[in-house]
Amino acid sequence: MAEPVMGNIPWEERPKGSTELVWRSARNPILTCSAVPGTRSVFNSAVAPFGDGFAGVFRCDNSAWMMNLHRGFSPDGVRWTLDPQPITWICEDEEIARLEYRYDPRVVWMDDRYHITWCNGYHGPTIGVGYTFDFARFHQRENAFLPYNRNGVLFPRKIRGSYAMLSRPSDRGHTPFGDIFYSESPDLVHWGRHRFVMAPAPGWQSTKVGPGPAPLETDEGWLLLYHGVITQCNGFVYSMGAALLDRDEPWKVLSRTRSTLLTPREDYERSGDTPNVVFPCGLLHEGPTGRLAIYYGAADTVIGLAFAHLAEILDFVKRDGA
Amino acid sequence: MAEPVMGNIPWEERPKGSTELVWRSARNPILTCSAVPGTRSVFNSAVAPFGDGFAGVFRCDNSAWMMNLHRGFSPDGVRWTLDPQPITWICEDEEIARLEYRYDPRVVWMDDRYHITWCNGYHGPTIGVGYTFDFARFHQRENAFLPYNRNGVLFPRKIRGSYAMLSRPSDRGHTPFGDIFYSESPDLVHWGRHRFVMAPAPGWQSTKVGPGPAPLETDEGWLLLYHGVITQCNGFVYSMGAALLDRDEPWKVLSRTRSTLLTPREDYERSGDTPNVVFPCGLLHEGPTGRLAIYYGAADTVIGLAFAHLAEILDFVKRDGA
Amino acid sequence: MAEPVMGNIPWEERPKGSTELVWRSARNPILTCSAVPGTRSVFNSAVAPFGDGFAGVFRCDNSAWMMNLHRGFSPDGVRWTLDPQPITWICEDEEIARLEYRYDPRVVWMDDRYHITWCNGYHGPTIGVGYTFDFARFHQRENAFLPYNRNGVLFPRKIRGSYAMLSRPSDRGHTPFGDIFYSESPDLVHWGRHRFVMAPAPGWQSTKVGPGPAPLETDEGWLLLYHGVITQCNGFVYSMGAALLDRDEPWKVLSRTRSTLLTPREDYERSGDTPNVVFPCGLLHEGPTGRLAIYYGAADTVIGLAFAHLAEILDFVKRDGA
Amino acid sequence: MAEPVMGNIPWEERPKGSTELVWRSARNPILTCSAVPGTRSVFNSAVAPFGDGFAGVFRCDNSAWMMNLHRGFSPDGVRWTLDPQPITWICEDEEIARLEYRYDPRVVWMDDRYHITWCNGYHGPTIGVGYTFDFARFHQRENAFLPYNRNGVLFPRKIRGSYAMLSRPSDRGHTPFGDIFYSESPDLVHWGRHRFVMAPAPGWQSTKVGPGPAPLETDEGWLLLYHGVITQCNGFVYSMGAALLDRDEPWKVLSRTRSTLLTPREDYERSGDTPNVVFPCGLLHEGPTGRLAIYYGAADTVIGLAFAHLAEILDFVKRDGA
Amino acid sequence: MAEPVMGNIPWEERPKGSTELVWRSARNPILTCSAVPGTRSVFNSAVAPFGDGFAGVFRCDNSAWMMNLHRGFSPDGVRWTLDPQPITWICEDEEIARLEYRYDPRVVWMDDRYHITWCNGYHGPTIGVGYTFDFARFHQRENAFLPYNRNGVLFPRKIRGSYAMLSRPSDRGHTPFGDIFYSESPDLVHWGRHRFVMAPAPGWQSTKVGPGPAPLETDEGWLLLYHGVITQCNGFVYSMGAALLDRDEPWKVLSRTRSTLLTPREDYERSGDTPNVVFPCGLLHEGPTGRLAIYYGAADTVIGLAFAHLAEILDFVKRDGA
Amino acid sequence: MAEPVMGNIPWEERPKGSTELVWRSARNPILTCSAVPGTRSVFNSAVAPFGDGFAGVFRCDNSAWMMNLHRGFSPDGVRWTLDPQPITWICEDEEIARLEYRYDPRVVWMDDRYHITWCNGYHGPTIGVGYTFDFARFHQRENAFLPYNRNGVLFPRKIRGSYAMLSRPSDRGHTPFGDIFYSESPDLVHWGRHRFVMAPAPGWQSTKVGPGPAPLETDEGWLLLYHGVITQCNGFVYSMGAALLDRDEPWKVLSRTRSTLLTPREDYERSGDTPNVVFPCGLLHEGPTGRLAIYYGAADTVIGLAFAHLAEILDFVKRDGA
Repeated sequence: MAEPVMGNIPWEERPKGSTELVWRSARNPILTCSAVPGTRSVFNSAVAPFGDGFAGVFRCDNSAWMMNLHRGFSPDGVRWTLDPQPITWICEDEEIARLEYRYDPRVVWMDDRYHITWCNGYHGPTIGVGYTFDFARFHQRENAFLPYNRNGVLFPRKIRGSYAMLSRPSDRGHTPFGDIFYSESPDLVHWGRHRFVMAPAPGWQSTKVGPGPAPLETDEGWLLLYHGVITQCNGFVYSMGAALLDRDEPWKVLSRTRSTLLTPREDYERSGDTPNVVFPCGLLHEGPTGRLAIYYGAADTVIGLAFAHLAEILDFVKRDGA
Repeated sequence: MAEPVMGNIPWEERPKGSTELVWRSARNPILTCSAVPGTRSVFNSAVAPFGDGFAGVFRCDNSAWMMNLHRGFSPDGVRWTLDPQPITWICEDEEIARLEYRYDPRVVWMDDRYHITWCNGYHGPTIGVGYTFDFARFHQRENAFLPYNRNGVLFPRKIRGSYAMLSRPSDRGHTPFGDIFYSESPDLVHWGRHRFVMAPAPGWQSTKVGPGPAPLETDEGWLLLYHGVITQCNGFVYSMGAALLDRDEPWKVLSRTRSTLLTPREDYERSGDTPNVVFPCGLLHEGPTGRLAIYYGAADTVIGLAFAHLAEILDFVKRDGA
Repeated sequence: MAEPVMGNIPWEERPKGSTELVWRSARNPILTCSAVPGTRSVFNSAVAPFGDGFAGVFRCDNSAWMMNLHRGFSPDGVRWTLDPQPITWICEDEEIARLEYRYDPRVVWMDDRYHITWCNGYHGPTIGVGYTFDFARFHQRENAFLPYNRNGVLFPRKIRGSYAMLSRPSDRGHTPFGDIFYSESPDLVHWGRHRFVMAPAPGWQSTKVGPGPAPLETDEGWLLLYHGVITQCNGFVYSMGAALLDRDEPWKVLSRTRSTLLTPREDYERSGDTPNVVFPCGLLHEGPTGRLAIYYGAADTVIGLAFAHLAEILDFVKRDGA
Repeated sequence: MAEPVMGNIPWEERPKGSTELVWRSARNPILTCSAVPGTRSVFNSAVAPFGDGFAGVFRCDNSAWMMNLHRGFSPDGVRWTLDPQPITWICEDEEIARLEYRYDPRVVWMDDRYHITWCNGYHGPTIGVGYTFDFARFHQRENAFLPYNRNGVLFPRKIRGSYAMLSRPSDRGHTPFGDIFYSESPDLVHWGRHRFVMAPAPGWQSTKVGPGPAPLETDEGWLLLYHGVITQCNGFVYSMGAALLDRDEPWKVLSRTRSTLLTPREDYERSGDTPNVVFPCGLLHEGPTGRLAIYYGAADTVIGLAFAHLAEILDFVKRDGA
Repeated sequence: MAEPVMGNIPWEERPKGSTELVWRSARNPILTCSAVPGTRSVFNSAVAPFGDGFAGVFRCDNSAWMMNLHRGFSPDGVRWTLDPQPITWICEDEEIARLEYRYDPRVVWMDDRYHITWCNGYHGPTIGVGYTFDFARFHQRENAFLPYNRNGVLFPRKIRGSYAMLSRPSDRGHTPFGDIFYSESPDLVHWGRHRFVMAPAPGWQSTKVGPGPAPLETDEGWLLLYHGVITQCNGFVYSMGAALLDRDEPWKVLSRTRSTLLTPREDYERSGDTPNVVFPCGLLHEGPTGRLAIYYGAADTVIGLAFAHLAEILDFVKRDGA
Repeated sequence: MAEPVMGNIPWEERPKGSTELVWRSARNPILTCSAVPGTRSVFNSAVAPFGDGFAGVFRCDNSAWMMNLHRGFSPDGVRWTLDPQPITWICEDEEIARLEYRYDPRVVWMDDRYHITWCNGYHGPTIGVGYTFDFARFHQRENAFLPYNRNGVLFPRKIRGSYAMLSRPSDRGHTPFGDIFYSESPDLVHWGRHRFVMAPAPGWQSTKVGPGPAPLETDEGWLLLYHGVITQCNGFVYSMGAALLDRDEPWKVLSRTRSTLLTPREDYERSGDTPNVVFPCGLLHEGPTGRLAIYYGAADTVIGLAFAHLAEILDFVKRDGA
């Protein structure tokens, strides 16, 4: 199966008078719990071009506050129809298939299919791995790592002949630390050659950092959107920045932003189940125009959409970078 | 004195198009600190039919942030007039009468009078017990338990020949745990035969649970509205669920909801002195119609009112129950 | 059955040159895990005159580190024979009878029998209550309080017509706080009229305090040996002091020692499963001579014995008292 | 240079029907991050009469969340123009001049110049000290104290022949404690004769207290606006109260408010980078009229302005005071 | 190279009168810091038959408290000569070779060489992997897992065609939790098919558990000695138990001891840099006789040796097992 | 008054076969609580040549665990007679004179008198300052700093024309952090020009560091003995190292030991009120011979004495230094 060609990326021009590198959709939040009956929140989700439009894997916490993944479809990337039933996973091993919880999915097209990773409950949070060809049938593989890990993000192609993944080793609770690491695999089952990528840095990313959507390959390196967290008097604040990773040895950080690209400001980002969260999980890139559409969870409650120009972001990462 | 007959329960029909089992009043928040001069917040309070209308005991934190109880009256259960002076308690024992703080009252009619319980400061939080015949004179008894305890809730009749109370043993601070227990008393002074009722459960009630308003007797058991708490990245979220307890041995849980019945969503529940709190303390039941009016504290700042049909709730507790 | 008359209290004279008010037995530790096969530690235990000699209830943690109570007998109060099997309790209620754990017993003769209290696991630590006439058959009552409580200690006679108990409300773990409270009961089942007795105080008792053996009635009031805890850089240190409580209103503290009467100094008190612990649970008093024999747990591992003269202790409590 | 004469203090009359002693500007928040490009927040700042209008030193956190001080000017105290560049400090010592972070400035006129103090990063937070004659050139002195300290506030004249400062010793993080102390200096470089002023007190100020703007001298003593903090279930709440200090021995508290004078209520105080914060740093006093204009940070995100009458505040501090 | 044949296993008969299943060497501690000049402690180390005698890899913390591995040799398993220089590792990758710290080694013979695993510092603790043919030259591979992990222990043969390892995922500090997991690898570089093995259990192993020496294959399954930890008032206590794992699916626990097999009792186990620690890392098994010699770290300071009969241990694991 | 000339420094030769740079007295512990009746511990104390022998200021915790300072005298520096009464301080200011607690003294001769500093309780720990000419009358000055501070240590001469002090800013409890800072004063009352000296470093000094006895001037710089702390599984371990500070700008560290010079090993250092503590507070230097006698607190319970050669220490600091 060939990589789907994206039709029209969702897009809004930068508002007049704005000098923001990343600007929010006027239609935000584009997705709330009203999209799925019996759901208390829809956030931290990933999308991809699919057929004539778009498909996605969405984190929906139900009214029992159980975290699970639902598929969804959209003609334009903004108006979404979500399956009210969670995804059923085809899996050979019963123990791996058993549901504890699933959340914060990422989706990336590679080879001939959509690869999906998420935070999967298996005696603690670890990285679940699966795939689908058609968003109809979903297959689950072995978990990539031992617990405790969050934010497993696949690169969209093999590197040095191996599959490659970024992730954030963690612990059992609301971890107050977090570095990004890189790992390789010959078969998407066994992982090794782990390399340290980056740690927290002063300011908005001083408590922890974790990878966002799948890295985007550019001539200058892999563009990685990531979240960073600072601890304020009344809790964490999650913002978004960007880093440029070496194309061949992606654990080498060429540059990363000192400043945030997106940070809580709007009511739906300030207030919700976790106040003050902007958490990017999905990214669309329109090659010819360099337009970017960024899907991010807001306040652990709803989904926001933001826009940017790739060239501007790249320029800023290099200029503002540390 | 005979049990007062409730006239018109406050009521609003379920909004068109809504499938919610519990729906909010369009007039929410029905009570704010503007109700009592010099008060910073009015919340977590209890009401009962009284005379032609309703009376209640209200938690008012004053502008020094001292927590105390005020009485209030209403012709319709929605528009309330609160006494700007805290309740004065008649009490034989000076040491028990001494005010540290009083908060989160419950009110229940039993025998010939209104019984009131609350969280009472006595070298730590414990359960204060009192009564009134007329909401004019209030009498205080001995504290029911040793510290540390919160959320003491009397059953509206004797069980197995004894008075019966639910409560949540606790500790000195913002306790990150909490189970519900049952205790019996021959005289409302000495308490024993303590039984475990229920513990936290996965999801919205995974951190702690505590009883809400006085249990409502039904043919199928005691209906207990309760609050459950989950710990998110930026703190606790308090929601409301329900349980069905055995009529004769109420420490036996017949069923309890896996899902929330009411959970923070509105601005006045999301934002306030304690963000993300829905905390039920009062319940009115109109026998013939099965209408329920639920009074709940919102964000530790204001009072909200919500409605439901008893039959639907009972049905849901059994169906959704674990 | 009449109160047993104590024959020879275990006794050693104060060592030459010593000015200590409380001095250790030269035979310390008098009891170690070697007393019961399969036991890792024997400590925090209580004794009483019985027949021609002495009987006791002992805390034995087995090699699975499960905490339980064993009976023991001694002709002289120093050489003990312990039943290798834990005590079996006769109890009407299955749920109360169920064993989670039992530890830190106290024994007191009252009316016609030996009353036993201990820390009993029932969804958290609370106070177990039981009795025996003969150290052959043991009966268990209802738990006295809701969790979380430790160190329940009965007075040896009714006060104001009620049974009376001291205890230390607590929480779920290795509680870093603790006050002593007083409660009354008409029937040893229902408890109320709770009164605050005393809180931590500067120095050796600045973290928490809890009652030791059953109070000893004297003309000047109830003599209560108690433990106090200070938090040092590398953890808690448990010492022993004494207080004098009003005979008729025992929640009124007439005096309490500013200084320790016994504090970790010997190797078997400094080193063990919990380093730096002296924890009194048993007390014998020879009326005619005023001799006191104090049994205390050492380092949560073994049992020590210490001696004192009642008159000297009383004098010191008043003189050194705050 | 002579002390500048204030022209028109910013002012709005108390709203009709209001009985508030301190009332908010209808134009709140008067300053937000939009005032300085590349800034995520502007708050906790200080102002002073300057020339025909007003000047100030403002805390601006930039988009990298680095905290620094900017100067600003206003014709009316409400509409402000801020320098987009942080203040450059002239300082003899390189190590002291080195920027870690600077925040929460206070400004006070004394002798012939404007003195500025702030929380200065030097291996932990301590008190930075500087001055300007003209808001054009700024000079930095030695830090007043060893770390860890916050909220250094100079008195506007010498006391007992020495410069005098209030401050709040602290620790490395989001300190959960805080008392106010007083210190003296012959030269604004060496500080000693430290005296305790006041500790937390029950209610809204039970966690920590810290001085606000420079104390205002009155016939009855120094009027000190200060912030107090309480710990709620989901974090701290910062409010404002007032104290009256002895004119000659300002470490002696003549009276302090039991109640808050200003406490989070509006959306911009409830929601932001640190929810539930009202934090006064600036104060203008119009002598002839007794009008007060109070500048306070709101939610660590924006600046609010509030008004009061000096005589009413003084009266209240004495009447409500403890 | 063929597996070395063990000559005389170090051995002492069970002391007269003892009924212990595991008994200590009368020569304990057999190794202290005096073995290596400039070392503050030697503990948690592993040994194997080598040539005519024995070789081992030893954890030596030097006088800067830097943790590293040294090789050692012994003719009899009791008297050891340690290389005063830490092992130098031959490693292709510079970043992996870089020393942060190395501790708690295990050694196992498999195929044609000695495999060594240890806790390796790489931006946090993870599992280092290496090998030697001759204890002269040592080769280091890639780290097995992402941080944070401790106690990686290889099985002595492939299972289901893969190399197999037990480990204990962890976090950054003195982790207060810990489960044992199982992982597989085709090449000792990439690891996957992670399976949960066992969690803490009541009593001595209620805080965390971790694998000890390499599992020993028996007809009844893999015998795993492991450490378990309980949290007492003044810290952790580390003891040793045993489990029997399924031969073909070793993540299935057939039985595990409810009781400890070895627990701190002697001075050198009670007192040291970490009081109350017994931590097994080395195991010798004499096939024909079933004799076991267990090497364990004591109090994070010295090495103890203990003995047992395999048949007795197996019998006990099954009998006492849960 | 002229500086006293030291007669015979206490001295023992390095034990045969030892290569230790610092070796313990064979008479250790040289001082225990038996030195002062009613005292539970004597430790962390300072000594100086006085008359024909030696005098000192000793930390004695009494049997109420109240911390205070006693003077003591010795003919040989080993056998000490302590005044059973705490030192009475002559002080002009009542509030400063008020006793909360006093501990961990240092003594240094400068100008014409003995200067004494200690940790002084004044609404938290800070640095008390005093002096004596004759160890008969003691004068107390103002506290040097605002709370919270520990380990204030004066240099034995003015530097850059000012008195100079090292100290360790701290917080309210058993602080888990600590850097050393330098401050200057014109008058021993007002302090400023604070400079950072050194922070924790890997290994034995990774949690906190604090200055020990007064620095010793040498041709190569100021020799500072200091304590460093590491956090192990069961708490802190305190060891001693040394640093060389620039003579003219002592906040510049020329070198500091990577290794410990003295670290807990003996029973009296391993076991006591705070296990695993070696804490140097006193230092004697015999100029002509270069002999050093070091007095250190052991396990917060007793005093140990150790010996070294100045030249060897200096050499080691430079050689081992980082």
